[in-house]
Amino acid sequence: MKYGIAVFPSKKLQDIANSYRKRYDTKYSMVPPHLTIKDPFEIKEGELDNIVKEIQKAADKSKPFQLKVLRYSSFYPVTNTLYMKVAENKELKALQEKLNSGLLQKEREHPFVPHITIGQEMNYDELSDVFGRLKLESIEHEETIDRFSLLYQLENGAWTVYETFLLGERE
Amino acid sequence: MKYGIAVFPSKKLQDIANSYRKRYDTKYSMVPPHLTIKDPFEIKEGELDNIVKEIQKAADKSKPFQLKVLRYSSFYPVTNTLYMKVAENKELKALQEKLNSGLLQKEREHPFVPHITIGQEMNYDELSDVFGRLKLESIEHEETIDRFSLLYQLENGAWTVYETFLLGERE
Repeated sequence: MKYGIAVFPSKKLQDIANSYRKRYDTKYSMVPPHLTIKDPFEIKEGELDNIVKEIQKAADKSKPFQLKVLRYSSFYPVTNTLYMKVAENKELKALQEKLNSGLLQKEREHPFVPHITIGQEMNYDELSDVFGRLKLESIEHEETIDRFSLLYQLENGAWTVYETFLLGERE
Repeated sequence: MKYGIAVFPSKKLQDIANSYRKRYDTKYSMVPPHLTIKDPFEIKEGELDNIVKEIQKAADKSKPFQLKVLRYSSFYPVTNTLYMKVAENKELKALQEKLNSGLLQKEREHPFVPHITIGQEMNYDELSDVFGRLKLESIEHEETIDRFSLLYQLENGAWTVYETFLLGERE
């Protein structure tokens, strides 16, 4: 089965992202707005428990982090994607690295660029029109993230949360 | 904010449910297939931590349960809803009661009928046509449920998982 790891930001930020996704994101109905921490990867049935333990260890050893949206940006011309660019910081980077080491290691196809997608598979004219407008907009948003989710993909392409993990050890 | 508590069954059962929901469920894109354990309820911002602790206690004191789908059924004429009827059992009933007592108490509008919706807001002709066919189909499916999810609703009506809770205390 295909799994992925993502952070769901606050309802406030998800609502802002959805106001764009509704029109511009072909995956709008597949999953709520999110920041992907680990790209989709395969887990075989017998391996799930061990992988979950490994993810739990990574979560325990991590810390809550600040999610700060810097601006709107685009992956064009690599892909016709629009996104909210999220500031890198050492806690987020450390978490992403922990979730990609040991049992969880997997070659990344691209460097890790923290972002929240708001449009994808857009045609060029629409992308350049919308991006042209969004470049002029300032977006000031910062929040604390204290959890992330392991999700799996259904046959229709939608994602269901398997488990949430809190960042840092609890008392 | 509006919260709800639901169980997401296995991918296999979700895929079966989605094969119907795609055509017959107006909420298809809002949330993956699920068994609602606690109807939508309001949590004020300052109350969330206490409510989550209460839910954690209820989860700790509960046990994994068997989810057995008995047959297809309908709430018609109360609502034009089609669903998979899930067998009641004492673990599920105890969990549902714990999640509706103490801090979590709320009057239910209807008695608790465990089910997984596969169609809703259907027009009468389609409902009676599809239900007529499904009544003749046998559905044999049983699985163990060891977790449930607390979700919140976004402005567009979709649901995001806030936290998953494992049933029974872990070592």
